[in-house]
Amino acid sequence: MFEGPVQRLIDELGRLPGVGPKSAQRLAFHLLDQPAAELERLAEAILAAGRDVHLCADCHNVAEGQQCRICADPRRGTEVLCVVAEARDIQAIEKTGEFRGKYHVLGGLLMPINGITPDQLHIDTLLQRIPTLPDLQEVVLAFSSTVDGETTANYVRSQIERQSPTVKVTRIASGLPVGGDLEYADQVTLGRAFAGRTAMGN
Amino acid sequence: MFEGPVQRLIDELGRLPGVGPKSAQRLAFHLLDQPAAELERLAEAILAAGRDVHLCADCHNVAEGQQCRICADPRRGTEVLCVVAEARDIQAIEKTGEFRGKYHVLGGLLMPINGITPDQLHIDTLLQRIPTLPDLQEVVLAFSSTVDGETTANYVRSQIERQSPTVKVTRIASGLPVGGDLEYADQVTLGRAFAGRTAMGN
Repeated sequence: MFEGPVQRLIDELGRLPGVGPKSAQRLAFHLLDQPAAELERLAEAILAAGRDVHLCADCHNVAEGQQCRICADPRRGTEVLCVVAEARDIQAIEKTGEFRGKYHVLGGLLMPINGITPDQLHIDTLLQRIPTLPDLQEVVLAFSSTVDGETTANYVRSQIERQSPTVKVTRIASGLPVGGDLEYADQVTLGRAFAGRTAMGN
Repeated sequence: MFEGPVQRLIDELGRLPGVGPKSAQRLAFHLLDQPAAELERLAEAILAAGRDVHLCADCHNVAEGQQCRICADPRRGTEVLCVVAEARDIQAIEKTGEFRGKYHVLGGLLMPINGITPDQLHIDTLLQRIPTLPDLQEVVLAFSSTVDGETTANYVRSQIERQSPTVKVTRIASGLPVGGDLEYADQVTLGRAFAGRTAMGN
């Protein structure tokens, strides 16, 4: 309906996740109102992401060089390795300040129904990596508290335990969200919170 | 928090309207998952929009060349000229199929409180354009049914009537939206619908 380049921009923006035809049109007209330098900055950021961002050779996190920032950091220990589904999950965990070890990114969760089987995730490199970390004591599985997260956690745990039985495999806790009202918690969450109860500190 | 190019992409995407920090991160990681060719297509569409899209010399609609598609179309008459606030409003009117004339884009609505005064809109070029259209009989003001739309319509009408008293100035109707329930219409809308009642066609 629009002039060539306008319509192409709308079409391209409409391919982004969560951007419907109306939002794509709104974004496009916003961009058309910007000075050319602004558009060049955005375009260059997109191109640079494609050109300069690779996956870390060790953990498959996004990285600018061969290794990601965390794998390259000598202050991060390898007694505890945290396994996440996606690179963006690392950011969420880093923000908590609770973890100072290294990560391993699977690249997704097992979803056999959608054809996502173990060979499509970085489970093989996880199993290869574990014996190379001599001081590794614990692998924390930090997946979403969903059916797919559950399935993946069970599978990864069984694989690690078969290969490296001395490594402890743990999972991040399920329970009431902080600030969450017990009265309004669903029964599955409350059941998990009960089952995962911990001794009160001293 | 992220590697350089990833963070830059998140920052740039976060500058788009309606894209908060979380969405920017989600979009960035989506883009990082795409093949380089896909990113180049998006970047090129953005650059092309900055490079190839201009404002139509006649009506200020977005245009690839000197004139927009509608002004360049000899089948579009100039007995009726439709004035809109933004170029994207043209699209909405075109979709109705009710209008086969030409447009004029003001580039916004008058908002004296926010400093948007008549000299910042393309009202001067509208007034210059009207005498150049010898068969012009009617100017339709197609603005939103808001206070700003109202203000702009009154101002533009007064300017046109002073300069070209033979040209009829009309405004698109306010009333119940199609499918709208009378019972739930607000009183202002219902009042407008009443005031704008039309004879039933035969």
